[in-house]
Amino acid sequence: MREVGIVGVGHTKFGRWNGSFLDQAATAAVEALRDAGVDLAAGKAHIDQVFLASMGVGQVNKISGAASALVDTINLRPAMAETVENGPASGASAVKLAYMAIASGMADTVLVVGAEQMRILTGWESTDFVATMSHPDAEYPYGLTLPSFAGMFTRLYMEKYGLTETDLAIVSVKNHENAMHNPCAHIRLVPSLHAITEDEDADVINPYVADPIRVYSTCPMSDGAAALVLTALDTGREFAHKPVRIAGIGQATDTHVVAERPDPLDLFAVRESARKAYEMAGMGPEDIDVAELHDAFQILEIVESEEVGFFPRGEGAKAAREGRTRVDGDKPINTSGGLKAKGHPVGATGVSQVVEIVRQLRGEAEGRQVKDAQTGLTTNFGGFGNNVVSIILTTKEEG
Amino acid sequence: MREVGIVGVGHTKFGRWNGSFLDQAATAAVEALRDAGVDLAAGKAHIDQVFLASMGVGQVNKISGAASALVDTINLRPAMAETVENGPASGASAVKLAYMAIASGMADTVLVVGAEQMRILTGWESTDFVATMSHPDAEYPYGLTLPSFAGMFTRLYMEKYGLTETDLAIVSVKNHENAMHNPCAHIRLVPSLHAITEDEDADVINPYVADPIRVYSTCPMSDGAAALVLTALDTGREFAHKPVRIAGIGQATDTHVVAERPDPLDLFAVRESARKAYEMAGMGPEDIDVAELHDAFQILEIVESEEVGFFPRGEGAKAAREGRTRVDGDKPINTSGGLKAKGHPVGATGVSQVVEIVRQLRGEAEGRQVKDAQTGLTTNFGGFGNNVVSIILTTKEEG
Repeated sequence: MREVGIVGVGHTKFGRWNGSFLDQAATAAVEALRDAGVDLAAGKAHIDQVFLASMGVGQVNKISGAASALVDTINLRPAMAETVENGPASGASAVKLAYMAIASGMADTVLVVGAEQMRILTGWESTDFVATMSHPDAEYPYGLTLPSFAGMFTRLYMEKYGLTETDLAIVSVKNHENAMHNPCAHIRLVPSLHAITEDEDADVINPYVADPIRVYSTCPMSDGAAALVLTALDTGREFAHKPVRIAGIGQATDTHVVAERPDPLDLFAVRESARKAYEMAGMGPEDIDVAELHDAFQILEIVESEEVGFFPRGEGAKAAREGRTRVDGDKPINTSGGLKAKGHPVGATGVSQVVEIVRQLRGEAEGRQVKDAQTGLTTNFGGFGNNVVSIILTTKEEG
Repeated sequence: MREVGIVGVGHTKFGRWNGSFLDQAATAAVEALRDAGVDLAAGKAHIDQVFLASMGVGQVNKISGAASALVDTINLRPAMAETVENGPASGASAVKLAYMAIASGMADTVLVVGAEQMRILTGWESTDFVATMSHPDAEYPYGLTLPSFAGMFTRLYMEKYGLTETDLAIVSVKNHENAMHNPCAHIRLVPSLHAITEDEDADVINPYVADPIRVYSTCPMSDGAAALVLTALDTGREFAHKPVRIAGIGQATDTHVVAERPDPLDLFAVRESARKAYEMAGMGPEDIDVAELHDAFQILEIVESEEVGFFPRGEGAKAAREGRTRVDGDKPINTSGGLKAKGHPVGATGVSQVVEIVRQLRGEAEGRQVKDAQTGLTTNFGGFGNNVVSIILTTKEEG
């Protein structure tokens, strides 16, 4: 198969965006094209295909054909263009499709942009928007929301493996600390573990969202965009950066209705997507130097760290407590600040995760740099685990 | 490159669908899987990837992650799945992505489903929904709609090439006649040319929508779904039908803002998408035995028949008048009834066009069968020509 690498990355500051949807998407796109050293003059960029990942561009922004509008905005005509939607895993899905476009020979160089505007919604509207990823006939009409799923899931896991709320808070504090070194992060403040768990005011500054999930164990609602330039490694075309190679991609679906799963704690699609990615890369968990896992809720970082094979079942929280998932640990997770502190503009997240790994593998991650990082993993989690995409990136030669 | 063929087709009756979005999509999907002879028992279908094409599943139906819900509904877990949106060209975009998935080696067999529910909207809401494919910053906020674009476009073309309203009506009557032989068509009645053009009541039964476009020169609002099973030709897997080979796919974007085009009558993206498809197929317009062109407005069938190379510039209407585009003509166009009479559930249309060509090339088109059809073309038109996909299908061996 044709080898594919990433030669450009772009990323807006997550948080609140005051321009239009297209402005935000184009800002990340132009940054990625500049980073790759692509000539932005009309007709000179030689981008064959654009994928725009977004969960809400139709539903929230009421825009159809946004990918073509983006192509026109940044002078990439007559590039092929599509919008891709896979809930919160839209971003990694777009990276997968870019890989397929290049590996198929239909394209040599592809721009991927993930973009979302969630802060034009009110609090309730945004919870409702996120809930549209539950099953449209069997879950959503009954009022289920993602925090309600996650609350039940968290309680079950805590009871089965003896976790406390402090175990969740430890993961949050780590990710907030990492975000202090990421200029693109939405929230740049570090709560003290004491203040959000044991302090007498803990219930005030860290109230419940959906017991046992508190404000400091779930992600914020963010606007944001991230972008990548992917290219075939066999064209001879020169870019400003040495490519970071895509070594493996794996994706799996699980039951859309969570209640249909024999064991609700079994995140099959996470495990299967990682297994496929490892298989394609000819690698295993031991080869991963740094990972971005989908911590929309802190329990997910813990469980995913087990399902992708970093730690045995039930020992993810212990590993976090021991500092093994910190930037200076043996399995650094969410050095970007994760969804918790960097923010979670849903369709942008999968692209943003890849941007962080590329920065780590290039040695450009500054205060959050993982020493000698050569291989990284991203896991992008759609719905409540109904569609998960894992990607392995490396600077090592194929072997 | 790996060769790809179509081995299964499914198609709901276009018109009004009384079930849920998922019901409709699943109905077309199951028909296509059955047509291909795929075992529908859980775990036995061996479908690697599902693409769901829809323009409104988020915006109209408020569903995210619908592709995964569809996978679960029809027991295809753990197949990969994404929703694809490219305005009214979403369907052909999904076929292109399926081709890429297979040609890349990441998938062997792929299910493509295009689905739309437009009749849950009121008349004004549906016009507004369709208008969201215009430019979100430069066109939509000023109240432009697709019929208004098409009206201006039609008037310009009529003045430049000396067309009458009867020329548009001739195309409509032909497509309504064809739809009488298509059990899946939305509208199955044939207006007489006299009644909708010269009769004293013509203005009553065929009123203006956007001068010079009348009711009988534009498509209806339809619900509908269509589906395809695509497979690699090198796997040795047996299906119930001999594959219809995808010989060529071409796609091109044009300015999203129509006013930016130097000549508004120049449908560059149609011409370029067809040119690329011919080039990939090693064929030309002379090789096409039957075509489905995107007649959302009748003028588009005329102009597209010129841009894809069937007739010289300005002579499309003359060819239609001479009967050359009828089922028994030398360039039969829209044997299915076209968008005009078969209906235009936007995201389903590109898939539906391919279904019709497959039926023609298999010799299953009954009363509308084109004699000895071996090669067909589809052109699926996104926005007002800002993103167009053309596909060439053939039963001839590669040569």
